[in-house]
Amino acid sequence: MPDTLSTIDTPAAIVSLPRMRRNIARMQQRADALGVRFRPHVKTTKCAEVVAAQRAAGATGITVSTLKEADQFFAQGVTDILYAVGMAPHRLAHALELRQRGCALQILTDSVPSALAIVEYGRAHAHAFEVLIEVDTDGHRSGIRPGEDALLDVGRTLHQGGMRLAGVLTHAGSSYELADPVALAALAEQERAGCVLAAQRLRAAGLPCEIVSVGSTPTALEASSLQGVTELRAGVYVFFDLVMRNVGVCAPEDLALSVLTTVIGHQAEKGWAIVDAGWMAMSRDRGTAKQSHDYGYGQVCTVDGEPLDGWLLTGANQEHGIVSCPGAPSVNIVGRFPVGCRLRIWPNHACATGAQFSAYEALEEDGSVQAWPRFHGW
Amino acid sequence: MPDTLSTIDTPAAIVSLPRMRRNIARMQQRADALGVRFRPHVKTTKCAEVVAAQRAAGATGITVSTLKEADQFFAQGVTDILYAVGMAPHRLAHALELRQRGCALQILTDSVPSALAIVEYGRAHAHAFEVLIEVDTDGHRSGIRPGEDALLDVGRTLHQGGMRLAGVLTHAGSSYELADPVALAALAEQERAGCVLAAQRLRAAGLPCEIVSVGSTPTALEASSLQGVTELRAGVYVFFDLVMRNVGVCAPEDLALSVLTTVIGHQAEKGWAIVDAGWMAMSRDRGTAKQSHDYGYGQVCTVDGEPLDGWLLTGANQEHGIVSCPGAPSVNIVGRFPVGCRLRIWPNHACATGAQFSAYEALEEDGSVQAWPRFHGW
Repeated sequence: MPDTLSTIDTPAAIVSLPRMRRNIARMQQRADALGVRFRPHVKTTKCAEVVAAQRAAGATGITVSTLKEADQFFAQGVTDILYAVGMAPHRLAHALELRQRGCALQILTDSVPSALAIVEYGRAHAHAFEVLIEVDTDGHRSGIRPGEDALLDVGRTLHQGGMRLAGVLTHAGSSYELADPVALAALAEQERAGCVLAAQRLRAAGLPCEIVSVGSTPTALEASSLQGVTELRAGVYVFFDLVMRNVGVCAPEDLALSVLTTVIGHQAEKGWAIVDAGWMAMSRDRGTAKQSHDYGYGQVCTVDGEPLDGWLLTGANQEHGIVSCPGAPSVNIVGRFPVGCRLRIWPNHACATGAQFSAYEALEEDGSVQAWPRFHGW
Repeated sequence: MPDTLSTIDTPAAIVSLPRMRRNIARMQQRADALGVRFRPHVKTTKCAEVVAAQRAAGATGITVSTLKEADQFFAQGVTDILYAVGMAPHRLAHALELRQRGCALQILTDSVPSALAIVEYGRAHAHAFEVLIEVDTDGHRSGIRPGEDALLDVGRTLHQGGMRLAGVLTHAGSSYELADPVALAALAEQERAGCVLAAQRLRAAGLPCEIVSVGSTPTALEASSLQGVTELRAGVYVFFDLVMRNVGVCAPEDLALSVLTTVIGHQAEKGWAIVDAGWMAMSRDRGTAKQSHDYGYGQVCTVDGEPLDGWLLTGANQEHGIVSCPGAPSVNIVGRFPVGCRLRIWPNHACATGAQFSAYEALEEDGSVQAWPRFHGW
């Protein structure tokens, strides 16, 4: 007999496969319609089966946030890999080893010192790394602003140093802070225009710049044009989550990840059910706290995945969660959610919650589940 | 050549062994002086080498938060194991299997329905589970209040049902919300008195109650008497962290866990160094946000572990952290922390940060480090 949501142990990270497949198709169709390649960010799932589904739907290569992800997916046959975190000099040996084994690994820099380290290591090993320059289009984190002199300095350092200057990359991560389609479309245009400007400046200076890579889940879904862009990246769209729900780029029926949990006790006078999903299962992410709707540590649903309006995971210790309905403390909690009863909880942030588990439990339409391993650490 | 903080990859979870050993000795001495057994909570580390050090110092048995911890440590020869989370009925088969293999596993309940499930399963398998009743002495989570009728109802259900009623257990977890030694000592006394009262009520009703188990790191360190108590539990004391620093139960030189990180870039105008320790390394725990000193995502230290006053991990994305000094933005950040420079960061919460890693890097006084595996998931 196949496993089901009634038979597997809890807490478990449940992936609704019909929803995941729909989310994958939606983003691929966006990229196709906008005329760009799509390179999913696999940091969200670190799971071979999910990435296989993204590639089967048309994805061209993958984006990674660690070289461990590159190692793992290269071992599974993916050769086109973009490492989208600024290159630390001590990791160049690892990157070189991957490239020498046949992985078309691209690396990233946003400063002359970092570019010089790449050039020196590459020259010392007679190897031309393929390098993108990170562009800052919204001020939220890393990168060189499109109009800065440093952009050309880094480009010349790499190109004249014998490296392959492959292109420019940006990530408008501040899109997570918005919640209005007009503002999101404006940020998507800012992301596109800034990255294209950086590419144009490099080309005008006689430097190569084939790749123009942009993306975040919200801007990818709200962009109306990606003129001048060659590839789109996004990660959390594959599952979506409550933060994305508040941003406004998905509906409740798109939420593909939930945590299955069991009721282990009550504090009846307080209207609390105690469950076995604490912060170790949900993560400590409270990303919805500063958004329009604060979901606590997550939205409580029935075991069948139907949201229970007003019921939240309002507290979390390591292996204990508190389920309550802040507006209605007088409910008969013991009768409604008896010991042993199972619930599902939508997380705030799918990347953070998934990382707490060593496997997803992939749930088919027929109710069967199977474990899909995911890896952990660096 | 042995590995050192200069040669290992980053991010890495560094454990200072001299500090860890001192913390272990300090807590064991407390328990010895108070005349009780000490049963460390291994959920903090999930690491065989750490637990071996705790046992070598005198710990009697261990406390676990998952049956996976019980499985792993039983496989390593620990037989005296207390599973200190309310028993879910579906886990009774797993608990029985451990006990039948020779593990003296104790389980926990705080309600008649849960006790009945234990009795029914035990009787059906002709097995007397060893059960503690969870007592609520501070209202923060699970348990029966010491004076409630339910305490005796649960005791009778277990005892008359043929289970071995082993004792009572409480955890005054609200101690994490305090910061004053007088208030902590008062809470420690409340924890002790409540748990002892529960034991006395059970005994007065003719029920057995051998074990009286209390503890949290702050109350364990501030209790002046544990009269009537038989065992003490604590977990995070082994490493301590910034939350415990704010609570006031450790000094900076007691902080045994830090995250080693590498500078990968800058936003010089903003005074930011970008490092490769984001929330995946630190966890999303922001436990100091509501305390007297908010450390952001952590306190920045030199690679030698000296705190850099005012420098915090002020922002965190998945694999990017932002190091800055909120009071002094005009520093020459690129010169001070160049690309490739290594730093260490004290975390808010050692349990949450450790869980992000698949190994600790144990740092000896001589500067050598070796990997100590830790496990993950359920």
